[in-house]
Amino acid sequence: MSDADPLVVFTPSGKRGHFAKGTPILTAARQLGVDLDSVCGGRGICSKCQITPSYGEFPKHGVSVAKDALSEWNAVEQRYDDKRGLKPGRRLGCQAQIMNDVVIDVPPESQLHKQVVRKAASARAIIMDPATRLYFVEVDEPDMHTPTGDLERLARALSEQWEIPAIRADLTLISKLQPTLRKGKFQVTVALHKSHKDEAARVLEIWPGLHEAGLYGLAIDLGSTTIAAHLTDLETGVVVASSGIMNPQIRFGEDLMSRVSYSMMNPGGDKEMTAAVREALNTLAAEIAVEAEIDADLIVETVFVCNPVMHHLLLGIDPFELGQAPFALATSSSISMAAHELDLTSINPRARTYILPCIAGHVGADAAAVALSEEPGKSDDLVLIIDVGTNAEILLGDKSGVLACSSPTGPAFEGAQISAGQRAAPGAIEAIRIDPTSKEPRFRVIGCDLWSDEEGFDEATESTGITGICGSGIIEAVAEMRMSGLLDENGLIGSAAQTGTSRAIPEGRTHAYLIHDASAEGGPRITVTQGDIRAIQLAKSALYAGARLLMDERGVDNVDRIVLAGAFGAHISSLHAMVLGMIPDAPLDKVSSAGNAAGTGARIALCNVAARAEIEKTVGEITKIETAIAPKFQDHFVAANAIPHKTDPFPELHKIVTLPNPNFNAGGRDGGEGGRRRRRKRSEA
Amino acid sequence: MSDADPLVVFTPSGKRGHFAKGTPILTAARQLGVDLDSVCGGRGICSKCQITPSYGEFPKHGVSVAKDALSEWNAVEQRYDDKRGLKPGRRLGCQAQIMNDVVIDVPPESQLHKQVVRKAASARAIIMDPATRLYFVEVDEPDMHTPTGDLERLARALSEQWEIPAIRADLTLISKLQPTLRKGKFQVTVALHKSHKDEAARVLEIWPGLHEAGLYGLAIDLGSTTIAAHLTDLETGVVVASSGIMNPQIRFGEDLMSRVSYSMMNPGGDKEMTAAVREALNTLAAEIAVEAEIDADLIVETVFVCNPVMHHLLLGIDPFELGQAPFALATSSSISMAAHELDLTSINPRARTYILPCIAGHVGADAAAVALSEEPGKSDDLVLIIDVGTNAEILLGDKSGVLACSSPTGPAFEGAQISAGQRAAPGAIEAIRIDPTSKEPRFRVIGCDLWSDEEGFDEATESTGITGICGSGIIEAVAEMRMSGLLDENGLIGSAAQTGTSRAIPEGRTHAYLIHDASAEGGPRITVTQGDIRAIQLAKSALYAGARLLMDERGVDNVDRIVLAGAFGAHISSLHAMVLGMIPDAPLDKVSSAGNAAGTGARIALCNVAARAEIEKTVGEITKIETAIAPKFQDHFVAANAIPHKTDPFPELHKIVTLPNPNFNAGGRDGGEGGRRRRRKRSEA
Repeated sequence: MSDADPLVVFTPSGKRGHFAKGTPILTAARQLGVDLDSVCGGRGICSKCQITPSYGEFPKHGVSVAKDALSEWNAVEQRYDDKRGLKPGRRLGCQAQIMNDVVIDVPPESQLHKQVVRKAASARAIIMDPATRLYFVEVDEPDMHTPTGDLERLARALSEQWEIPAIRADLTLISKLQPTLRKGKFQVTVALHKSHKDEAARVLEIWPGLHEAGLYGLAIDLGSTTIAAHLTDLETGVVVASSGIMNPQIRFGEDLMSRVSYSMMNPGGDKEMTAAVREALNTLAAEIAVEAEIDADLIVETVFVCNPVMHHLLLGIDPFELGQAPFALATSSSISMAAHELDLTSINPRARTYILPCIAGHVGADAAAVALSEEPGKSDDLVLIIDVGTNAEILLGDKSGVLACSSPTGPAFEGAQISAGQRAAPGAIEAIRIDPTSKEPRFRVIGCDLWSDEEGFDEATESTGITGICGSGIIEAVAEMRMSGLLDENGLIGSAAQTGTSRAIPEGRTHAYLIHDASAEGGPRITVTQGDIRAIQLAKSALYAGARLLMDERGVDNVDRIVLAGAFGAHISSLHAMVLGMIPDAPLDKVSSAGNAAGTGARIALCNVAARAEIEKTVGEITKIETAIAPKFQDHFVAANAIPHKTDPFPELHKIVTLPNPNFNAGGRDGGEGGRRRRRKRSEA
Repeated sequence: MSDADPLVVFTPSGKRGHFAKGTPILTAARQLGVDLDSVCGGRGICSKCQITPSYGEFPKHGVSVAKDALSEWNAVEQRYDDKRGLKPGRRLGCQAQIMNDVVIDVPPESQLHKQVVRKAASARAIIMDPATRLYFVEVDEPDMHTPTGDLERLARALSEQWEIPAIRADLTLISKLQPTLRKGKFQVTVALHKSHKDEAARVLEIWPGLHEAGLYGLAIDLGSTTIAAHLTDLETGVVVASSGIMNPQIRFGEDLMSRVSYSMMNPGGDKEMTAAVREALNTLAAEIAVEAEIDADLIVETVFVCNPVMHHLLLGIDPFELGQAPFALATSSSISMAAHELDLTSINPRARTYILPCIAGHVGADAAAVALSEEPGKSDDLVLIIDVGTNAEILLGDKSGVLACSSPTGPAFEGAQISAGQRAAPGAIEAIRIDPTSKEPRFRVIGCDLWSDEEGFDEATESTGITGICGSGIIEAVAEMRMSGLLDENGLIGSAAQTGTSRAIPEGRTHAYLIHDASAEGGPRITVTQGDIRAIQLAKSALYAGARLLMDERGVDNVDRIVLAGAFGAHISSLHAMVLGMIPDAPLDKVSSAGNAAGTGARIALCNVAARAEIEKTVGEITKIETAIAPKFQDHFVAANAIPHKTDPFPELHKIVTLPNPNFNAGGRDGGEGGRRRRRKRSEA
C-alpha cells in the first residue's frame, strides 16, 4: 500500500488506508480492522458484507469520489440481487473492488459487532460478540497420499481461511462429519464456539453448504417462582421470542429455604427437584422454538442466571450446605459446560451452557447478572440496586467499591402467599388508587390500558376478566391503604366504623379491604386481608433491612439513586414502594427501573463473550455481606415492620387519571428520558 | 544453603546439596529435583517417601556419614511402623531431618517415576509418569467472610500444596464434593488427571482422608477378532490382571471389510456394531475388576489401540468411507475424552479415555502403538516390524525414516477360517513337528509343556483335551508339511501314494493331512485340509506383499532385522514363518518377537503421559503407503502365493526333542538374550 494507491475511507469508523487497485472492499476492511461481517469468507454467497459506496465530494475526509471508484457490478452481485434482492446502492464487499479513492459506509446490519437496540430503561448497550458464530469453509478433499482425517482437514481449512488456531469436536459431531462434508461437496458451514476460557474452538454443528437458517441462544433467568427465557438471534442479538413458566419446584417449597428443608427431610429430594426443573427447562425450550418457528437444533447456547439454591439444584448438587452457616457453595465460579450435562435434550445435542458466577452462598449468579447489566462499579454516584424477587439481591456501590447481599423476602412480592394473589398475567390487578376521602378504589388490570372508572373498561376486560392481584398490584394496594387511612402504622386494617367505608369488612377477628366483588356473577371476590398485609410487611422489612445493612456497611444514610430490578421490578411504582418502606427514601426522579436486570445480564453474557470474563473479574471485587449473621439485619428488620405515618408526599399524583406505570423517570446514565412513556403490554412477562 | 550446612547426597541419582539443619529429607529431595514420591505431601501418613540413610565412609561422594546424620526416629515413624511396618533401615523422608552430612538412598519403590520391569523380549522400558495421580490435600474450611465455593478452595489448596495451576471438574464430581470434604474433615485425596493437551487438571475422583486403595487404568488392544485388556496399577505400573474376550462384532463379519460391508448393506448396522463392542468392553472391564478384586470405580483411565475400522466403530462413526478409496478417516488425531462418551459405564463415571492417533485409513492406532513400543524411528539398523493379526500392520524404517502400511491378511493366522482352527486357548495345538522320513507328527498343546510323543503327555492333557489348532500351530503345520514333502510348491497336498503316508487322506477332490484323530472316543479329528492351506497361502501372501512393498519403497532387498509382533506374534516360530514365506528372509538370530507390541504401546501411553505427545509427533513423521492402490502390491501378492522348494535350512532343529518356542534369539537392542528360555504358560493370552 503506497500513497499512490487509491484511498479508501470507511464510515462510520473513519478508518482509512491506501490499497492497490483491484483490492476487494472486504479485504481492505479486514486489513484495517473495520467491523465488516462475513460468514462465507468472501465467496459472494452469504451477503453479510454488504456496503454502500458514497460518491461525490467529502471535504471532511479529504476525498473526492468518482463514479468509477469501484469495479463494475459483477455477475456474482447480479445473481445475488436476482435471487434475494440487494437494497439500492448496496454492493457486496467481497465483490466490489477498489479502483479509485472511495468512501464506504458499513450499514449497521453488516457490522459483525452490531450494537443491539435496548429498551431505553436499560443501563447498557449490548455489543454483539457471541461465543458461537457461523463460518463457511471450503475443506480439502481427502487424498490417499496425505491421509489426514476429515476433522483434521476441517481444522486446517478453518485455520487457513479463518485463522482459528485449533478446534475440538464431540463424537456426535465427528460421526456426522463425513456425510455432511460429502453432501456439501466439501463446502460446509460450521457453528464454532469460542469460549473465553479455552483456546480451542468447539465445533457445535455442521451443515452442508451455506447455512442460512440462523443460530440462536437462550438467556434464562431461573427464578425460585418463575423461569423466564429469551430466545435470541446470535447473529443480530434480536430477542425473537420470550416465554416464561412457573418453576415446578414450587411444589417442594415456595421459598428457597423450604426447598433446602425438603432436600434435608427427604432422601433424594434434591434429585427430584433437579429432575423437575430440568424437565421444565426442556419444555420451555421446546415451546419457545415452536413459538419462534425455528428448529430447536438451532439453539446452540444457553446462559443461566439464578440464585445459589436454584444454581445448585439445576446442577444436581444437594443445596444442604446452603441451609446452614457458613452457607458454603459447592462451587462459586462460572461454569462452562455441555448443555446435555443438564439433561437439556430439547435443543442442539452439542449446545453449550454458561452459568454466571455466584458471589456468595446467598448472593447468586442472578446478582452477578444484575452487576453485569447495571454496572454499579462503574457508577460515579452511589447507586442502590434492588432486584426484587422471592429472594432479593441487593447491590450498593460506585466506582470506589460495591457491596452485595441477599434478603429472603419470600414470594409475596410475586403475588404468592397473598389471598387473592396471582402471577402477572392478563386479568391481574397491577395498579390501584384509593381515594383518600371516599376510600373507593379504582384499578387497572394487565391486558387493558383503561382504569376501572373509565368508560369502556368493562367491555375491554370482558375477555380477560378480573382474576386476582399481582405483585405490583398488592404493593400499590397496601401503600394506598396506608395513605388513605385504611391502615394504621402497625399495619392493622381498620373496621368500617373506624374508616368510614363499607369496603372494610370483617374477616375473622380482623378486617379486610374489598377491592372488587364479582361473586354475584360467580366471579372472584378480591380483598386485601390482614394476612396479606402481614406477608407484605415481612417481605418489605426484609428488603429494607438488607438495603440498610449495606448502607450501614458503607457508612451512609442516603444513596444518590435507586434502581429497581427484577422480573416485575419494572412494574413497581417507585412512589408506592417508598410509601410502603420497601426502599430507602430518595428523590422520586432518582428511582428508576432496570426491568429484568438479571435477565438482561444473561442476555449480555449470551451475546458478548468478553462480558463473561468481565463479570468473572467483577464478582471477585464485590464485597459480600451475609445478612443471616449480621445482628443489625434483625434490628433493621424489626424496625422496618411498621408503615410510618406519612401524609401523601405527592398529592398531585392522585389527580392524574391515566397514570403511566412504571411512573419513574429513567435516571440511568444513558441520559434519562424524562416524561412519560407508553407502557408496554405485559402478557407473560 | 551454604557450604557450612550439612551436605546431603542422594543415590542413585547422585544429586547433592547443602541444607540447613532440620530440613526434612523430602524437602531437600524436592529442592534438588530428586525423584522421591509423596501422596500426602509430607504429612507422614502415606509412607510413599521411604528412604534409606547410609552410614560410614563414602569416598566416591566425599562424605563421611555419622550415626547422628539424621534426626531421631520420631513418633510419626513409630506409629507408621507399628501400624504397617517399615523395612529395617528405612525412614520416612518427610519426618527424618538432616542434622549432618548424609547419603540417602531412594529405593525403587519410592521413586515417583519408577521404571516398570518389562519382559526381556520387550524393546523399551516404561517410566511411570501417568496422566492420573493421587494427591492428598488439606482444604481450608468455608468462611462466610471470604465466601468462595468448596471447589475453589480445593483448587487453591492444590495450587498451594501441589503447584497445580488450575483444575476442572464434572458436575458429578462437584455434586459429591461437599459431603466428601466434610467426611474427611477437609482432608481429602483427589485423583487428578493432567492431560498433555489441557493446562487444567481434571478432578476425576475424591475420597475423604488418605486414599490407599490404589488407582488403576486399562490398556485395551481392540482387535478385529479379540479384545485384550491389561489392568494396570497406575502407581506401580504393575499389570495386576489381564483378560481377553472375543470381539462380538465377529457375528457381523469376520474381517474388517465384511464389517464395513455389513454397515453399508444394513441401515444402522454401524450402530449395532458400536453397541456390541461397547457392551463387550463393559463386560470385560467389570470382569477384570472382579478378577483383580478391586472396586471398578478405581479404574480411572482407559487407553485404546485399534485399527481404523475398529476405531470408528468404537467411536460410533460409520466406517463407510474406510471401505472405498481414498479411505478417508473421519478423524486421524489422538482422542482424549470422557470414557462415558463411549458408554463405558462399568468403570469410574469420570474415567478418561485416550485413543492413540491413526496413521492412515488402513493404518491405525494399533500401528501407532507398535511404533511407540518398538520405536523403529530410533533404530540404527533397518528394522521390519510386522504386527500379525486379522489386519497386519507393517512398519519398516530406521533413524532416517519410517514407512508404514497395513495388509488385509484375514483371520486365518488367528485360527479362524481354518477347518480345525480355534483361538489360542488350552487344548489348542500350538506347535507341531513332522518327521521328514516317517511323515509322523508330534505336537504340543497350550496348557502342557510336553510334546505329544513324550511320556506323560496323555495324562497332562486329560483335563484340556486336544481341541483344535491355533494360529501358531497352523503356521508351523503348513511349513512342516512343506519341509517334509507333504506339500508341493503350489501348496497342493499330496496323496498317500505320492507322500507315502496314510495320514494323507482323501477329502473331496483334494487331500488332507491327519494330525490327530480322537473320533473313536467321540473327540475331534484334527486335519489340515487343502482349504486350510489356501487360507494360509492367501494370508501369508498378503503379509509378505505388504512387507515387500515397503522394501521396494525404501529401495532395499534385505532388512537388518525383523520383529514379529501381535497378540500371538510372540508364539510364531520365526523359522516356520520364514519357511512359509510369511516374512522376508533374514538371519534367524535377527528375527525377534515383541509380543503384543500394540498392547505394550497402549500400556506405555497409559503409564506415561509424555509418550502420548511423543507418538502424536511420531505419527506425523511416518510415511504411509496405501497397499490397496499400489499395483506392485498385487504383483507381490501373486508372486508370494507359492511356497518355494526349500531344503530344510536348519536340519539340526529337528533333532532337538524339547524345542523352545518361540525359538528365536531375542535380537532387540536390549542386548539379546541368546539361548533358550522357558516359555511362559499361555492361557487366555
